[in-house]
Amino acid sequence: MIEAAQTLDGWYVLHDFRSIDWASWKLVSEEERQAAVEEFIKYLEKINEADIAKTGSHAFYSIVGQKADFVLMTLRETMEELQEIETEFNKLAIADFTIPSFSYVSVVELSNYLAGKDSDEDPYQNPHVRSRLYPELPRWNHICFYPMDKRRQKGANWYMLPMDERKELMRSHGLIGRSYAGKVKQIISGSVGFDDHEWGVTLFAEDVLQFKKLIYEMRFDEVSARYAEFGAFFVGNILDNEKLVKFLTV
Amino acid sequence: MIEAAQTLDGWYVLHDFRSIDWASWKLVSEEERQAAVEEFIKYLEKINEADIAKTGSHAFYSIVGQKADFVLMTLRETMEELQEIETEFNKLAIADFTIPSFSYVSVVELSNYLAGKDSDEDPYQNPHVRSRLYPELPRWNHICFYPMDKRRQKGANWYMLPMDERKELMRSHGLIGRSYAGKVKQIISGSVGFDDHEWGVTLFAEDVLQFKKLIYEMRFDEVSARYAEFGAFFVGNILDNEKLVKFLTV
Amino acid sequence: MIEAAQTLDGWYVLHDFRSIDWASWKLVSEEERQAAVEEFIKYLEKINEADIAKTGSHAFYSIVGQKADFVLMTLRETMEELQEIETEFNKLAIADFTIPSFSYVSVVELSNYLAGKDSDEDPYQNPHVRSRLYPELPRWNHICFYPMDKRRQKGANWYMLPMDERKELMRSHGLIGRSYAGKVKQIISGSVGFDDHEWGVTLFAEDVLQFKKLIYEMRFDEVSARYAEFGAFFVGNILDNEKLVKFLTV
Amino acid sequence: MIEAAQTLDGWYVLHDFRSIDWASWKLVSEEERQAAVEEFIKYLEKINEADIAKTGSHAFYSIVGQKADFVLMTLRETMEELQEIETEFNKLAIADFTIPSFSYVSVVELSNYLAGKDSDEDPYQNPHVRSRLYPELPRWNHICFYPMDKRRQKGANWYMLPMDERKELMRSHGLIGRSYAGKVKQIISGSVGFDDHEWGVTLFAEDVLQFKKLIYEMRFDEVSARYAEFGAFFVGNILDNEKLVKFLTV
Amino acid sequence: MIEAAQTLDGWYVLHDFRSIDWASWKLVSEEERQAAVEEFIKYLEKINEADIAKTGSHAFYSIVGQKADFVLMTLRETMEELQEIETEFNKLAIADFTIPSFSYVSVVELSNYLAGKDSDEDPYQNPHVRSRLYPELPRWNHICFYPMDKRRQKGANWYMLPMDERKELMRSHGLIGRSYAGKVKQIISGSVGFDDHEWGVTLFAEDVLQFKKLIYEMRFDEVSARYAEFGAFFVGNILDNEKLVKFLTV
Repeated sequence: MIEAAQTLDGWYVLHDFRSIDWASWKLVSEEERQAAVEEFIKYLEKINEADIAKTGSHAFYSIVGQKADFVLMTLRETMEELQEIETEFNKLAIADFTIPSFSYVSVVELSNYLAGKDSDEDPYQNPHVRSRLYPELPRWNHICFYPMDKRRQKGANWYMLPMDERKELMRSHGLIGRSYAGKVKQIISGSVGFDDHEWGVTLFAEDVLQFKKLIYEMRFDEVSARYAEFGAFFVGNILDNEKLVKFLTV
Repeated sequence: MIEAAQTLDGWYVLHDFRSIDWASWKLVSEEERQAAVEEFIKYLEKINEADIAKTGSHAFYSIVGQKADFVLMTLRETMEELQEIETEFNKLAIADFTIPSFSYVSVVELSNYLAGKDSDEDPYQNPHVRSRLYPELPRWNHICFYPMDKRRQKGANWYMLPMDERKELMRSHGLIGRSYAGKVKQIISGSVGFDDHEWGVTLFAEDVLQFKKLIYEMRFDEVSARYAEFGAFFVGNILDNEKLVKFLTV
Repeated sequence: MIEAAQTLDGWYVLHDFRSIDWASWKLVSEEERQAAVEEFIKYLEKINEADIAKTGSHAFYSIVGQKADFVLMTLRETMEELQEIETEFNKLAIADFTIPSFSYVSVVELSNYLAGKDSDEDPYQNPHVRSRLYPELPRWNHICFYPMDKRRQKGANWYMLPMDERKELMRSHGLIGRSYAGKVKQIISGSVGFDDHEWGVTLFAEDVLQFKKLIYEMRFDEVSARYAEFGAFFVGNILDNEKLVKFLTV
Repeated sequence: MIEAAQTLDGWYVLHDFRSIDWASWKLVSEEERQAAVEEFIKYLEKINEADIAKTGSHAFYSIVGQKADFVLMTLRETMEELQEIETEFNKLAIADFTIPSFSYVSVVELSNYLAGKDSDEDPYQNPHVRSRLYPELPRWNHICFYPMDKRRQKGANWYMLPMDERKELMRSHGLIGRSYAGKVKQIISGSVGFDDHEWGVTLFAEDVLQFKKLIYEMRFDEVSARYAEFGAFFVGNILDNEKLVKFLTV
Repeated sequence: MIEAAQTLDGWYVLHDFRSIDWASWKLVSEEERQAAVEEFIKYLEKINEADIAKTGSHAFYSIVGQKADFVLMTLRETMEELQEIETEFNKLAIADFTIPSFSYVSVVELSNYLAGKDSDEDPYQNPHVRSRLYPELPRWNHICFYPMDKRRQKGANWYMLPMDERKELMRSHGLIGRSYAGKVKQIISGSVGFDDHEWGVTLFAEDVLQFKKLIYEMRFDEVSARYAEFGAFFVGNILDNEKLVKFLTV
């Protein structure tokens, strides 16, 4: 029997992608738009309180191309909080001028493929593990998000490989990731049972080209080349309050 | 010739997923909204009468992410009742502020893969069997739903396996499920001829993480690893009247 | 060279699935709704004249779940008549409150896989053949519809099998169907060149569970297990004038 | 290295499928509708001038089922003319009551698979070739359209077959087509680089059943059975001015 | 371990495809339309300033068929500029009469498959390399765009081939492209991590038939025949100010 991978699970994650209905947005008065933007910024500041309290984290980026206009990615301790954040957004005035374009539900995950030696220690008390399960999202220039699966095909069935082989494959895969340390920060979140793919991958970089370099290099690695199935890719630029105001000024 | 699986079939099941059209909902008056919510709650209480009379059961949960805002899952003795429940919902005032996002039609099913020894007993009179075919849905914190198929591919064709092999595979698959007893309650409903996949799987848990743990562990089991094809996954949080009112207050 | 199957072809068939736009339907006056329903019923009665004259047949059922609210299935001698029926529906007042959800164009078909010995007789004059090519659709409680294809994959290419092998496979497949005689009535219509799949399958039953039992049993038969690709499945309940009026009363 | 097929290329082709928005169409006044129909007919007559001048050709048919309500297929000497025809349609009043449902861009094509012996003659001067590259579309009762590809799969890769084998396969495929001479007229147009499939196939027949007979017979031929991938199928009935007026009268 | 390909990366690229909402466009006044067109032309002239300054480039073409009505392709030094261009378009009056139909985010790319001998030279200083990474888009009659992937299938896994084999395959592939020099100008842009496919291919030609000839010939080449997966294809005609005004005059 195949040995199942074990995971450590941290904060729950919601990626909420929205497009702006520009034609409607332009139709309302300058005052109404201004009030909606102010309310939106207050909402974002409230979201940010969890970042400050280290009970959660969030990222807010514009998205390039027609797939979406922005993404709000939030990490929280419970699934209920994610939904409250989503519902609270829907009740904002700005929400009436947005169109839901994509979302993803997952939980930050560390698998035991890369784990060190077993110990008596509770990993959830290990500061290094904690910093990865409950990550402070960086405020870097760019975000990249994509969901993915491991293949279960005849001749390329990840879930039928022995644990040792999966471990070795993941180890060499991880080496590529590590060679981008400082350039790309990577958050892996598991979504089995939560959304349509098995994982969500969120990358942050100051130089957007590093996303392409990292993912392209990994594609030649056996784990991706043979076993990965990718969903849609989203790429974007960081939004702060000033940029948001400018973005929404018509 | 391959021996077909036999099934015992219980209540018919409708999963009805809806999104809320928040922009329209905000446009109507406070009074109109309040009346719509009250009517909706009365409808849910009427649905619940079958739960009390044990002639049916239902579950009502919000859904996290953009796929839907809530799901109403109803179990009834006939396909006609399912449709009446659906049509009655459509005639509610609240329905005008919802957008159909997904639905699934099936019937609670027990297969003979896991059956004990044959006996002269009519299984439909067996209390244990009855409790599974006509289940009282729990009021646990979380729901997870996904449809699935068994593969019919060259080299991985479930329907060409001998009965004994399918039985053995399902037995070991069931062992994983049983190890989650008390943590995850599972309802399997068959949908061959009723909807686009062959089965619907509905899970309930107090701890949402148990969905991921169970399904991920099963993925390494041969039945899933080699023979399962999965549809979309939905995950949500329980709604009671109080939460519903809060959810719909804008 | 592979011997192509020969077919006998009867009435042309249109399956027209529609969803009701309940929110708009509620917006118009009671009188307007009543007039629209009366006009709709007159249209259905006109459709039924062909049933009486035995120059066609039709079935009218509600559909469970969000895929559609009802289906009108009509059989006629020509493709032009099908279109007239479709266009006439579109010109009804009720049509303005419906949303097209799916349709299927085909022609009732008998293949020579199951043919008896050759004879000099013109099969189109054989009363048994005629009753199958120009069938009187039953008024049974339930309908099930799905389109399907035969696979043309490496290692499972139906169209590369010798005629004798296809004949033998279809014969054993037909035996399952025949064991449901009296419980399930089956109309096979060919759609090569007319619509996206190769066949449409329409089933009627008094007991909706027989659809699942029949199709699930067939799935273990080699023709389905190895060679069938299925499209969407629709299941519904019969509508007569009284039920239709109740259905449309808001 | 595999020898690529050579093609002769004739007129550019646009298939423009539209659905009618019946509810909006009914809303405008009788006069407005009449003016829109008259303008539409004038547009079609202008289109027809190219048919008369033999600088192009067109076909205009209603489509059965919900995929579209009609198709306008136009053949012209340049891609620019196709776009002008499309844009001119969009500027008509009737266009405001139609919904784009599907389109296809291609160019009439003859491949050298079926070519006779090489000669010094310029094929574009050969009258037989010219009549096929610049065809006068018939005014037959029915149209059938579908796009298709040749497979590039492991074990069934059309583009890796030697020229001689492709030639022989196409020759036997063509024999089936020729046996329908007089019953089905076939226009093959290439769309590599122009649209999502590699070819569009347009068939015309007086008896709609001949589409099914031809395509079904071909499906058992190795070229289709092993190497063809089909897109959506559309089938329809011829429209002349009288039929168009009746069709649009509400 | 497989040696990953190295790339040189130039300007970031946004392909922004839009359809015109003709019915709405006709509804507004002649003055409003004229103002919107003038503003649009000013926007395009501003876009063109980067072409003049050689800090970017752009192409503007109408698209044939229903997939879109026009495409604006812009090349810029940063991802942020692409988004500004997109957002600025969305804020134009004309944008309210367009519907987003497709977009693609990528970066002009040269791979080392075709690289000459290594040298100490910085390739980003090589004028020939620079002219390809920062290309001046031609003002030729026609554009063709499609995204594509290299396959990662069992038996046809591009990413598992040794570097030498990929290099040889790409070399022979490139020979076909070079034989179209002067007829077809090709821009390859990489989109791994930026959009759903791995590359975008943009072709320009004076004679639209050359797109079909080039791509069809390449399809018989092993790189395409065995390893390529293609997305949607778009083809169009050049738009200048005069043509744009005519196009938008209703």
